[in-house]
Amino acid sequence: MQPVNIGIIGLGNVGSGTLDILADNGDRIAEKLGFPLRVAALCSRGIAAKKLPTGFETAIRTADWREVVGNPEIQIVVELVGGTGTAREIIEAAIDRGQSIVTANKELMALHGPALWDRAIAAHINLAMEASVAGGIPIHAVLREGISGDRITALYGILNGTCNYILSRIETARIPFSEALEEAQARGYAEADASEDLDGGDARAKLAILTLAGLQTRVAPEAMRARSIRGVDALDFDYAAELDCTIRQISRADLKGETLFAEVGPSLVPASSPFGRVQRNLNLVVTSGHYGGDMAFLGAGAGGDPTAVAVVSDLMFVAESLSAGVRSHWPQQFLAPKVSCDFETPWYLRFLVRDRPGIIARLAEILSAHELNIDAVLQKPGFDKAALPFVITLEPCRDSQLHPALEKMAALDFAIKPCLCLPILR
Amino acid sequence: MQPVNIGIIGLGNVGSGTLDILADNGDRIAEKLGFPLRVAALCSRGIAAKKLPTGFETAIRTADWREVVGNPEIQIVVELVGGTGTAREIIEAAIDRGQSIVTANKELMALHGPALWDRAIAAHINLAMEASVAGGIPIHAVLREGISGDRITALYGILNGTCNYILSRIETARIPFSEALEEAQARGYAEADASEDLDGGDARAKLAILTLAGLQTRVAPEAMRARSIRGVDALDFDYAAELDCTIRQISRADLKGETLFAEVGPSLVPASSPFGRVQRNLNLVVTSGHYGGDMAFLGAGAGGDPTAVAVVSDLMFVAESLSAGVRSHWPQQFLAPKVSCDFETPWYLRFLVRDRPGIIARLAEILSAHELNIDAVLQKPGFDKAALPFVITLEPCRDSQLHPALEKMAALDFAIKPCLCLPILR
Repeated sequence: MQPVNIGIIGLGNVGSGTLDILADNGDRIAEKLGFPLRVAALCSRGIAAKKLPTGFETAIRTADWREVVGNPEIQIVVELVGGTGTAREIIEAAIDRGQSIVTANKELMALHGPALWDRAIAAHINLAMEASVAGGIPIHAVLREGISGDRITALYGILNGTCNYILSRIETARIPFSEALEEAQARGYAEADASEDLDGGDARAKLAILTLAGLQTRVAPEAMRARSIRGVDALDFDYAAELDCTIRQISRADLKGETLFAEVGPSLVPASSPFGRVQRNLNLVVTSGHYGGDMAFLGAGAGGDPTAVAVVSDLMFVAESLSAGVRSHWPQQFLAPKVSCDFETPWYLRFLVRDRPGIIARLAEILSAHELNIDAVLQKPGFDKAALPFVITLEPCRDSQLHPALEKMAALDFAIKPCLCLPILR
Repeated sequence: MQPVNIGIIGLGNVGSGTLDILADNGDRIAEKLGFPLRVAALCSRGIAAKKLPTGFETAIRTADWREVVGNPEIQIVVELVGGTGTAREIIEAAIDRGQSIVTANKELMALHGPALWDRAIAAHINLAMEASVAGGIPIHAVLREGISGDRITALYGILNGTCNYILSRIETARIPFSEALEEAQARGYAEADASEDLDGGDARAKLAILTLAGLQTRVAPEAMRARSIRGVDALDFDYAAELDCTIRQISRADLKGETLFAEVGPSLVPASSPFGRVQRNLNLVVTSGHYGGDMAFLGAGAGGDPTAVAVVSDLMFVAESLSAGVRSHWPQQFLAPKVSCDFETPWYLRFLVRDRPGIIARLAEILSAHELNIDAVLQKPGFDKAALPFVITLEPCRDSQLHPALEKMAALDFAIKPCLCLPILR
């Protein structure tokens, strides 16, 4: 059978990994598909100096993406440039020319995914983006096909490997946050400015893509609350352990009627849950189905090789669809829900106070005045009285109900800083 | 667009669950597919007395499967009869008539999967069997599509919910094996004769299906060794804990060159690994990819509703293929590897002896004579000297190297019974 011609734009880690798999595993791929994938063009700014695996000698080599997108022989464009500038131009131009697209671009798909998707659907082409979120977990294939018969009602995830590395290092080594961050930076798991990771921006972008694919909701990433993990301290893991919990950066989206409850941020999770057990820089996605219940998927979050597998798997899926004449595999209708972070959940409040008699009584009074029920008070011995940390946990209540009480408590004269307030996932 | 007509044979738990989803979620399915799934025939021995959800009034109702398979209007036959007799007749007859098939039949696919698959490929029809193994984990979709770009080299799983329930109950409650089994039977997780579960037959059948789908190997279930979990005692969990391990029934298949190393049986697994953390009657599948590394998938093993989701997802996949004119989605070439249980692995040997001086020395001498290296000797206090359990762990060696030493040690006069010998998964 005729080969399907592809053009790859961007030859960094993921692009090189993709080429390696295509070079090494091409026969097997051709056998599975019934036709070969032919790399017809390779594009990279530094193409002249690139050392490429053998087998791609006939491919056009160019530093200009327009030679790939403008080439009528190329049926699938692989966008591995990243960012929201050129990448967007590439994808829009490819759609307009009727070329199918495989992309690993998280930022772009989180920001402009719905718009690009609409455009792709209107043009009857496939836009595949497995590699854009949790590269080592084939969650798009699972949602598109594996559990297509279910109705997904909620998605939970550990979607940022940097945060998970830092939090699980604090957990196991009880080192301060700053030391764990430095370690992550030294190992190349975190950038010099890690704000996008630590403050939840990265995970929120991924959550937006997941909700698009899994819940058919169009949600701007900024519409979802992101809380930073910067306030979490080693001692919070001690207190969490008293509750048989640990702390992870959790992304969650729960569709209830017309409202999408969604946020990203550090949360207490049971130590024995799939979340509590995710170590190092791994990712986890949990799907909650109306009929089939919960499933958990664990794998590498990033890394050139797992992400390259996602790109090649997408290429095979899109090539097969092209060859069969099927064009669009995604829902054509999206919901535009109200987005809320007003979760009803139990809470963990960790205070830092100048100790003196009557503190708990005063806090309990404020909580009671707001009709908030205390579940437990935890105070470990051995801390300095001038900066004493202790914990109050609350029975389930809404965020909006808790907020006014938090403000009152932050204003008390014995509070050294506002309490660290984390939801408890049950 | 034209509906795709389906006929469902067998209306037990899974069949009823499938009908419920199709009744309840039909509009959403039609939107996703671009055409509806129409239930054209329902077949069950007790069809006259069955109460069915509304919406299927126009379907033929029959107690004779030949009215479904013989009906030229029906494009997909859903076989939910189970067993290897009538079910095989149904599937073979459907293939011969060019009808596509969705089946949840583990026994049949494990025993005759390769032959039926060949027949289906030759007839250019789709045979989908997601529901036949780990109903609540979409592992077939993952292998077929999610990580199709990788080359899977090994598969590991916890595939039998009954064994996992029993072992994790012994682990958490430290009750004897017999009590955990009774509990599983009382809760409906184990049958009165649970041999198929306990002795590994059930998991082995599932492993055969997984290797077919994931490693493209044709292997008869009986060609793989199955060890029983019956010899595992509560005290083994105490000793395992000393090694930071727990015990699970592990199914594994590792393709190395022309040899498939495969077996099912109780194994020590690190307590912190995905295996060690699978509780109750859940299932786990771990895939090992040449390029992308490991991924873990956790979900319900059985149960009408998760399995029904697998059936409906398969129906959507097959209907979409039919509508697009694509017929076969599986590898067309299979390997027929040599099957071996001669794993190279560390070992856990738990002895039960009449205590007297010199026992360890005697055992160490035999081990040394067979060039087996002791890694640790563990003996917990408080046991009866007349039936003293203690543990020796060995550094990695092949099963075939260990076996002669085990025979010699079993013949020693202080041995009350042959030692319990479990591989340690690292």
